[in-house]
Amino acid sequence: MKSIAILGSTGSIGSQTLDVVRQHPDRFSVFMISANSNAALLVQQALAWRVPHVVICREDKYREVRDALPPEIQVHLGIDAACALVQEAEVDVVVAAMVGFSGLKPTLAAIGAGKTIALANKETLVAAGSLVMEAAARHHAPIYPVDSEHSAIFQCLLGAEGNPLRCIHLTASGGPFRTWSREQIALARKEQALKHPNWSMGAKITIDSATMMNKGFEVIEAKWLFGVEVDAIHVVVHPESVIHSMVEFEDGAVIAQLGCPDMRLPIQLAMAYPERLPLEGERLNFSDLRSLSFFEPDLQKFPCLELAFKAVAAGGNIPCAMNAANEAAVAAFLEDRIGFYDIAHTIAEVMESIPYVGEPSLEDIFATHEAAFYRARQAFPAL
Amino acid sequence: MKSIAILGSTGSIGSQTLDVVRQHPDRFSVFMISANSNAALLVQQALAWRVPHVVICREDKYREVRDALPPEIQVHLGIDAACALVQEAEVDVVVAAMVGFSGLKPTLAAIGAGKTIALANKETLVAAGSLVMEAAARHHAPIYPVDSEHSAIFQCLLGAEGNPLRCIHLTASGGPFRTWSREQIALARKEQALKHPNWSMGAKITIDSATMMNKGFEVIEAKWLFGVEVDAIHVVVHPESVIHSMVEFEDGAVIAQLGCPDMRLPIQLAMAYPERLPLEGERLNFSDLRSLSFFEPDLQKFPCLELAFKAVAAGGNIPCAMNAANEAAVAAFLEDRIGFYDIAHTIAEVMESIPYVGEPSLEDIFATHEAAFYRARQAFPAL
Repeated sequence: MKSIAILGSTGSIGSQTLDVVRQHPDRFSVFMISANSNAALLVQQALAWRVPHVVICREDKYREVRDALPPEIQVHLGIDAACALVQEAEVDVVVAAMVGFSGLKPTLAAIGAGKTIALANKETLVAAGSLVMEAAARHHAPIYPVDSEHSAIFQCLLGAEGNPLRCIHLTASGGPFRTWSREQIALARKEQALKHPNWSMGAKITIDSATMMNKGFEVIEAKWLFGVEVDAIHVVVHPESVIHSMVEFEDGAVIAQLGCPDMRLPIQLAMAYPERLPLEGERLNFSDLRSLSFFEPDLQKFPCLELAFKAVAAGGNIPCAMNAANEAAVAAFLEDRIGFYDIAHTIAEVMESIPYVGEPSLEDIFATHEAAFYRARQAFPAL
Repeated sequence: MKSIAILGSTGSIGSQTLDVVRQHPDRFSVFMISANSNAALLVQQALAWRVPHVVICREDKYREVRDALPPEIQVHLGIDAACALVQEAEVDVVVAAMVGFSGLKPTLAAIGAGKTIALANKETLVAAGSLVMEAAARHHAPIYPVDSEHSAIFQCLLGAEGNPLRCIHLTASGGPFRTWSREQIALARKEQALKHPNWSMGAKITIDSATMMNKGFEVIEAKWLFGVEVDAIHVVVHPESVIHSMVEFEDGAVIAQLGCPDMRLPIQLAMAYPERLPLEGERLNFSDLRSLSFFEPDLQKFPCLELAFKAVAAGGNIPCAMNAANEAAVAAFLEDRIGFYDIAHTIAEVMESIPYVGEPSLEDIFATHEAAFYRARQAFPAL
């Protein structure tokens, strides 16, 4: 029996994590769930899964959660409470499923206590990959990826037997605007950007998929998780999202992981590894799917992807600045305050203007995030 | 440095094995090569790779080989000499690349001496899978597959970490007649059947691919190599031959091995395992290949595939009888003595008429082969 703590339980990954627990009550129990502001769902989850510890981050929601739950469920307020709870001795696996930069602090807390990390929060590695991986090594905290692409790469590498990688083929659906022209994309509104063709996800990551910044983040995530140079990570547009990613060895053999688009598979594997448990749900049927296609990514139409490669090349605190500017710009786009390509413009401008720090400390990372986020927001018209 | 013995060095697999040795002179040396009748190529190979032991099986070719080689190269006559040489202490890996049932005896000899087997000769497992696998277990002789599909499955299973398989997806190109109608196929001549769309192989296996008997053999081979029930082996027609095969786990994850159609990869892996050595040659380029497609196999057009499933279900000596009838029928087709669908008719008839032996001994297997081969040949018009 593994005891699970879920950071961000009311989001898409968090909810699917609870569904995995539901399917395997003999394998997993939930020790803690946390949410930023969705009090109603948090209460519902706490009752349904009988979770002893519940964290709500927003102070104005605390009373609502506390009043709705029986006294045997402890309700805590704030991110620091979550950081303390993931370090408790009872916790085996911490599912890091918060959105954006806010996931960094509690994830580092869990790493510091040597917990197994099921990492869905890619921004943690984008902003502070070097610090996070160093901490994981120092505290012997295994990090298993939950992102479907990185879970695929992880699965493909299980049989590597020490043989060196030649490269990674990181697949991308291409998002909702894959077949649109640049001119059409320029006029895209949030309702259109939020329609992902294959995956049902939260709003932030869905916009990141539409700009392909998500794929840029995943390149950086892969670099840190698998210790691979960015030159050896090739982005392949594969609209069917059936091949979740591939690795290539020096003899030319390519190993791929395929499956239906179902995040519960990588979530479950990260929680149960090295075991593969049965999972309810659709199975790939090759005669039904008929055909799989592949394309080069179009950097003209998706400048965010190129920005991510530039950020990695620059190194230091620049990926952190890029991530912060992206968070601010995506929020502004979702508030209808800026256009689609303003996201990329804002990020490019912030990356240029933020003072460079070659080997940032954790304090530098937090300072860079604040400065870049603030700087990006200055560029937007007021609500 | 591994010392290699090649059974069937002048065939397609044998020649490609020598090319792998050429690319890695620091890793492999050749101790023995054997051929049935191609004296000229055997001599050329012996000189080029400085092979100390050369076996020619056909007595009428012995003088030609002996006279063409210098005295420091020992020339041996006959299959029994090959059986003795593969057991020599100097030999590390035996590449079993003979064509058809004739590979059984020397492969069993190598297994008996505990050698590592790089198995290209699938008929060995079709005819005597139970005996071969028992012998391999008893003598601790690892069998690594050279068939591209089985090498793919082997590679996909390297990372299984003890998790049980749900099924195998065995890919098939569909051969040269995939898009032909049954009426057109009925009139096909050997020149047409010999034009395989993706793989350059010997004549016997190319005809087996055209009838899809080759895929039936591969189902049986997979059953024995991976200990999987035939129900859990799904044949998927995949005309591009890019995905070489796949395995599916209980959580729905499918692991696939992909690559250019180049037999040197599985040959090299079987010889060097667990190492993956660099390999000259083409690499998969996903933007170039554009699309991969998948279809159900058509058992109406390719009755041999169904015969193979029937043979496995019958068990005992029936797969051996099927293999023998197929060898006789393919030879007759290549001599223009019978039509394309006569191959399947002959096999079906022989499978019906051969006395059933439930748990055949090695003697039973040889007797079945002889009887079935003879019976099949009776069905053909004289040359």
